[in-house]
Amino acid sequence: MAVQQNVKKGGREAGGDLIVGKHVYGNLYGVDEEKLWDEELLKDIVVEAARVANMNLVDIKTWKFTGFHGGVSVIALVLESHISIHTWPDYGYATVDVYTCGANSDPWKAFNYIVLKLKPRYYIVHYADRSSIPGYTESEKR
Amino acid sequence: MAVQQNVKKGGREAGGDLIVGKHVYGNLYGVDEEKLWDEELLKDIVVEAARVANMNLVDIKTWKFTGFHGGVSVIALVLESHISIHTWPDYGYATVDVYTCGANSDPWKAFNYIVLKLKPRYYIVHYADRSSIPGYTESEKR
Repeated sequence: MAVQQNVKKGGREAGGDLIVGKHVYGNLYGVDEEKLWDEELLKDIVVEAARVANMNLVDIKTWKFTGFHGGVSVIALVLESHISIHTWPDYGYATVDVYTCGANSDPWKAFNYIVLKLKPRYYIVHYADRSSIPGYTESEKR
Repeated sequence: MAVQQNVKKGGREAGGDLIVGKHVYGNLYGVDEEKLWDEELLKDIVVEAARVANMNLVDIKTWKFTGFHGGVSVIALVLESHISIHTWPDYGYATVDVYTCGANSDPWKAFNYIVLKLKPRYYIVHYADRSSIPGYTESEKR
């Protein structure tokens, strides 16, 4: 799918010398089972999370897997990278990834919004730098 | 989208008492620009990566963002979670996430396959445990 972007993808505030990538991800334990089966609710949460974090939603898709060990997956492609939620309702368990690029979007806002809505009893969160290395653009000639 | 699964999602070897989640992610620096613009190549690499890692591909989608700071995104939803590649060809830069659930799939195999194909000059890789906590399934009553 070709997308003509109006907003530049990533590194918008960085003067073009690097891509600023920020990835916040966490595991949410002890989440209400009904919420974790609710495909529409989860989709709405991701759409709103993208909005509060100033991310530009390009596409969003959800899947429901039935049966034991089943659950819901939501993946949103945003101009700034992606947001995903995977759930395992039988385990009261969900994982969340919010990965943005560019100085204008804030993955923590999206992550915190999702936690606020899913209300886990407990969660852990990590941060990963997904930025490019300035000036390190050349490939090896092979 | 409803999916009737034949293979249980996640934790298949764990006796059902927890979800085993394994997330390998990395940043690839100094990758050939042409490869990073090649939507079909990147898609094929992800499909094959899923296969070598014993992951079950459910859906795959690609997007191309034109212009400065543009690039390609590939996101695959697998029964075991997801694989994503985001590229910024102007920077020779790509990021890769391989997130699997269940003891039968190996995210390292997929990650290493992608690195082998994209041939970065340099890359960093991290591992995150995305497993549930055994017995910690109840939500708070709110």
